[in-house]
Amino acid sequence: MSQTIRVALVGLGHVGRGFLTLMLDKKDTLASRFGLSIKLTAVADSSGAVLDARGIDPTLLLQHKLTHGGIGTFPYGGKPGLAAPDMVKRAKADLLLEASPVNMESGQPGLHCLRLALSQGWHAVLANKAPLVLAYQELSAAAAAQGKHLAFSATVCGALPVVNIGRRDHVAVRYAKIEGVLNSTSNYILTTMEAGKTYAEALREAQAEGVAEADPALVVDGWDTANKLTIIANSVLDFPCTITDVEVRGIRGIGPEDLRRARSQGEVIKLLAVALPLGAGYRLSVHPARLPLPHPLATVNGWEMGVVWHTDIMGVQFAKVDERGPIPTAAAMLRDVINISRG
Amino acid sequence: MSQTIRVALVGLGHVGRGFLTLMLDKKDTLASRFGLSIKLTAVADSSGAVLDARGIDPTLLLQHKLTHGGIGTFPYGGKPGLAAPDMVKRAKADLLLEASPVNMESGQPGLHCLRLALSQGWHAVLANKAPLVLAYQELSAAAAAQGKHLAFSATVCGALPVVNIGRRDHVAVRYAKIEGVLNSTSNYILTTMEAGKTYAEALREAQAEGVAEADPALVVDGWDTANKLTIIANSVLDFPCTITDVEVRGIRGIGPEDLRRARSQGEVIKLLAVALPLGAGYRLSVHPARLPLPHPLATVNGWEMGVVWHTDIMGVQFAKVDERGPIPTAAAMLRDVINISRG
Repeated sequence: MSQTIRVALVGLGHVGRGFLTLMLDKKDTLASRFGLSIKLTAVADSSGAVLDARGIDPTLLLQHKLTHGGIGTFPYGGKPGLAAPDMVKRAKADLLLEASPVNMESGQPGLHCLRLALSQGWHAVLANKAPLVLAYQELSAAAAAQGKHLAFSATVCGALPVVNIGRRDHVAVRYAKIEGVLNSTSNYILTTMEAGKTYAEALREAQAEGVAEADPALVVDGWDTANKLTIIANSVLDFPCTITDVEVRGIRGIGPEDLRRARSQGEVIKLLAVALPLGAGYRLSVHPARLPLPHPLATVNGWEMGVVWHTDIMGVQFAKVDERGPIPTAAAMLRDVINISRG
Repeated sequence: MSQTIRVALVGLGHVGRGFLTLMLDKKDTLASRFGLSIKLTAVADSSGAVLDARGIDPTLLLQHKLTHGGIGTFPYGGKPGLAAPDMVKRAKADLLLEASPVNMESGQPGLHCLRLALSQGWHAVLANKAPLVLAYQELSAAAAAQGKHLAFSATVCGALPVVNIGRRDHVAVRYAKIEGVLNSTSNYILTTMEAGKTYAEALREAQAEGVAEADPALVVDGWDTANKLTIIANSVLDFPCTITDVEVRGIRGIGPEDLRRARSQGEVIKLLAVALPLGAGYRLSVHPARLPLPHPLATVNGWEMGVVWHTDIMGVQFAKVDERGPIPTAAAMLRDVINISRG
C-alpha cells in the first residue's frame, strides 16, 4: 500500500529548511515503514513563492535558498513577490506546513494562510505558535468543520510529545497540576548564569548558539513559555483561552547571585509554566520559581525542556528532552504529517 | 454522539478490580468527554465466570468478589467453574480486557482467551505481558487480519505511555539506544538497600508494599524487566522476538555494600533494560549497571520507572513515572479502551 501526500510549506527559516532536509534524509524510511511519499508542491518565504504541482525538488530549492537568500527567483516555478496566502490559494496540496516566524501581534502571515488552507479542505501542521495562541478555538473549529486535522505537536517542546501525551495518553485524567520548563533558551541562560556568567554574557551565548527564538522578549520575558502553556491549556486541558489569559513574568530580574543563593540552600531557579485548576477552569502562569534539587524540573538543565504532570489516576509523570537546533522541531512536523497520513 | 462498548474481562486481581473501580469513578468523565459508555458483559476469575449481556453492575460484582473470594457464585449470571476461555466463547462483547496473572511458561489462560477473542472479531486490551512475550507476532497478525486493535500500553510501565510514545511519536526515528528502569519493585529494593537495609529486608518491604509482581523471579531475576523489553522490541522497534532473545541477569547478587561503594564513586546501580542496534536488528539485555549520578535513569528512585530514548532526529528523550498500586495500570487499560473507541 502506498500513498502520496502533497504538502505546501510556508516559511523557510531554520525549521522549514529542516523539514526539507528530513524529506530527503527520511525518504526511504517513510517509504519502507509507512508506504508514504511526501510531495512538495508549493513553498513560500518572504521573497516570494514556488508553485509546481509535479513536485519541487527539495535539494535544488535548499541550494537556491542558501545561494540567493530567497526562493522567489527559483528557476522552476518561482514567483517573485507572491505572498504566502496567495501561494496557498493557488497551490494544489493536501496539507499546509506552517513554519513562518512567530508574530505575536497579528499571527500573520501564518493565521491567514491557515484560514485559507482549512477553508480549502487541507490538513494543517504547525510549528508556528502565534496562530494557535491567538485563535486556537477558531482554527480548531474550522478544521473540525472540514473533517481535517489541525496538528501542532512541534509547537510545544519540539520533538518531546507533550501535546500528544496529554491528548492521547492522559485520557480520562484529571490534573492536579501541570508544570514545565518549556523554553530551552531561557533555561540555558539560567544554567549558564549559575555557572558564573553574567546575564549579558549568558544572553549573548544563548543567542549565538540558539536557533528558534532570537527575540529576547519571547525568551527572557517568558512569552514563548506562555505561548506553549496556552497551547497546552486549549488542547490538553480543553480550557479555551488565549495568550492574554496567562500571567507572565520573565527572568530579566534574575542574576547570578540569586542563583548562587538558591543553590546554597539546596534549590535552583527555573522559569516555570504552571497550570492549576481554578473553579471550572485553570489558572495559567509563567514565572521564575525556586525548586528543591530533587524536583524533576530541577534536573532540566541547559538546552533541555521538561514537563511534570500530576494526575489523579496515572501517577506523577515527568518527561524531558535534550534537543539542539531545528531538526527535532522539523521532525515533530514530520511526525504530524505521518500520523495524519495514517489516519 | 454517544457510543457503548461492550467489554469482557479476564482476571479479577488488583488490576482487573482497579478497572472496575475506574469504570465507576470515571463514568461521568467518559460520557462528557468522549460520549462513551462501557458496558461490562462478561467476567472470569479462577472461580468461574459471570455472563450478562444486559450489563454487569461493577459495584455488586466487586462486593461479591471481596466477600466471597470469587465470582462464580455471583447471583446475577454467575457460572461456578466456567473457565475463562469458555466465558470468551459465550460472551457478547466488542473487546477483551486481559488482566489474568503472568504465566511465563504457557501464557495461559490469557493466550487462549486472546486467540479466541481475536478470532471472534473482538478488539483486545492487555495488562498481562505473558501472551505478548511468547506470541507477539502471532497475536499482532491475528488482530490485523481481523482489522481489530491489539492494545497493550498497560504492559510497559503502567500509565507511563512508553509504547505509545515509541509507536506514535517517535515515528521515522532511528534509535541509537533505548535504556530503561522498567520494574519498580526491583528498583525499590535497590533504593532501599542503598538506604541501609539488607537484601532480605528490602525484598520483604517491597513484597509487603508491592502489588503487581509478587513472584521474586519476575522481580529480582529481571524477568519482568525482560518482558517489557520484549514488548518494546516487537512493538516499537519492529524487531520480531520473544523473551528467549533477551540476555537476562537480575539483582540477586547485588548487596548494600555494592550500592554504597558505587555511591562513594558518584554512581548508582540500577537494573537496566537495554536495546542496542546490532546488524539488521537489536541486541536486547537486562542487567545491573552502574550509572553516573547525572544520568537520567540515576534519578529514577524507589517505586519509579523510567526510559531514555536516544534518537537520531528527536534528541535524547527521557520519561519517568511515580505510580503506586494497581490503578495506574488499570487506567492505562482504560486509555486503550477509549482510544480504540475513538478510532
